[in-house]
Amino acid sequence: MMTINHVKIFAPATLANVGPGFDVLGIALDQPGDIVIAERKNEKGLSFSLHDASNPLPGNHKNVAAHVANLMLEEFNPPYGISMILQKNMPIGSGLGSSGASSAAAALAINTLLPKPLAKMDLVRFAMEGEMLASGSPHADNVAPALLGGACLIRSYHPLDILKLPVKNDLFWIVAHPHIEIQTQAARAILPEMIPLTIAVKQWGNLAGLITGLIQGDSGLVGRSLIDHIIEPVRAHLIPGFYEVKAAALTAGALGFSISGSGPSVFAVTPTRELAVRVATQIQKTFLTLSHIKCDIYISNINLEGANILEQSS
Amino acid sequence: MMTINHVKIFAPATLANVGPGFDVLGIALDQPGDIVIAERKNEKGLSFSLHDASNPLPGNHKNVAAHVANLMLEEFNPPYGISMILQKNMPIGSGLGSSGASSAAAALAINTLLPKPLAKMDLVRFAMEGEMLASGSPHADNVAPALLGGACLIRSYHPLDILKLPVKNDLFWIVAHPHIEIQTQAARAILPEMIPLTIAVKQWGNLAGLITGLIQGDSGLVGRSLIDHIIEPVRAHLIPGFYEVKAAALTAGALGFSISGSGPSVFAVTPTRELAVRVATQIQKTFLTLSHIKCDIYISNINLEGANILEQSS
Repeated sequence: MMTINHVKIFAPATLANVGPGFDVLGIALDQPGDIVIAERKNEKGLSFSLHDASNPLPGNHKNVAAHVANLMLEEFNPPYGISMILQKNMPIGSGLGSSGASSAAAALAINTLLPKPLAKMDLVRFAMEGEMLASGSPHADNVAPALLGGACLIRSYHPLDILKLPVKNDLFWIVAHPHIEIQTQAARAILPEMIPLTIAVKQWGNLAGLITGLIQGDSGLVGRSLIDHIIEPVRAHLIPGFYEVKAAALTAGALGFSISGSGPSVFAVTPTRELAVRVATQIQKTFLTLSHIKCDIYISNINLEGANILEQSS
Repeated sequence: MMTINHVKIFAPATLANVGPGFDVLGIALDQPGDIVIAERKNEKGLSFSLHDASNPLPGNHKNVAAHVANLMLEEFNPPYGISMILQKNMPIGSGLGSSGASSAAAALAINTLLPKPLAKMDLVRFAMEGEMLASGSPHADNVAPALLGGACLIRSYHPLDILKLPVKNDLFWIVAHPHIEIQTQAARAILPEMIPLTIAVKQWGNLAGLITGLIQGDSGLVGRSLIDHIIEPVRAHLIPGFYEVKAAALTAGALGFSISGSGPSVFAVTPTRELAVRVATQIQKTFLTLSHIKCDIYISNINLEGANILEQSS
């Protein structure tokens, strides 16, 4: 096998907490995403740099990509060091799995340079440590789809059991990132500790419907299952004009609409690209006219590939 | 279209609250089941009789089959009456959907005799009224599979949204009915009103895994998803020796094991009929030696047909 000395990796943004799937379901998007460039160097250890002057990201020690890279170098102790550049293309605290994408890209970069690379699934536990650093919680619903692609179910954390669902990938997912910031930790702090059993039953009925709809490619079922009775009601007020934007999206033809991750990004789903564009326009317009908030829009099917190698050389 | 004057209907037992699927998932079995014989008579109204001397069932007015029949006759007001016999083949309070089977059989019987029969799906709301009478709660997770067959997801009650899941039907379901009685209402009364969000997340992760496993025919996934963190722990003590029986079933090769409906019946799932027989033997033996409780055993795949017409004539 050829030794790989240089690699360039892309890892995509992800949509987590998909409607009723809080903490267990995540979906990979085509864009945005982060890029990690890594190469072997003679001196052991990691030298890390960040290419994004516009983002106030923490430096080397607290950057999630550097953290994941350091953990993997410690564990595998290869006879070389790594020089790593993170090209950060999305803001932290967006609800688009920004730290998950950086962690996934770093994990796949280090892995690709290893003498005996692991399977992508085995990288999830390293990338989860990036999430631990970023949010204080080692969740996998962003890093799993960022690495593996597709719609990933985290059935269980102990033991870790991640399933890439066999989705029919014909729906269009619109993600809108309004230019406001929500800290993941703050968004988690407002969650209720206890919930009524009757509400939990509604939530898991909808999640079961959503999973079935994704697997069968039943757009109507996906749409009417995208109801979140627990998380959306408490987080919606963190996003100015949330309910007006939601109403505008549904009126414009979205099958469903909810918060992406812990916000402030929101997402909608449509059966066609044409409708997706129409819905996106209404989301953007409503955020702007109502709350004077600009937002970036991304439209894609589910990204089935996940983190991937853009370039490699020996 | 030929007028049908006489009909004989079978409706099967059902397994509800399947593992993590409390109140939303039910599965139809091949047996046991109830039979309803109905025929038109000249005088309007219902005459009802029950063929089961061994069961202390309520008489005409409170019998669920009679209740469902009366409701349908009121709603459709056909120019004839109905003479109905319910052949009750399973005990009430068994956790096998006894009242659901009677309700489903009655609904399909009345429907088959109507000048313009409805689709089976449209009968669910009538059969649910039988459940309302029996348990004080109009749940659909027994009547839906009893009518429609298969594994049915009750995604939502308001509006009612029932899905027959596209299962790969290669697993064997063992249901054991120990000869003790639990009242559905009592079993509901001990349920917690509030549950921790963290536990709910585990539950819906497992339900999503179970649904995926059933659709994909992934027996390992079905087995490891059959974990109920919420209902089983509070209801297990109503069933003498529950945990010992569970351990015996799992040791004998069951992939998963939990309570059927609100008990006292329990169920297990295996990938082969041979293993199903071995597991059934261990369940029976453990109930008997440990608690001196006899139990009936039923083994089948999922019954994909549900309530069906055994005989009809003009």
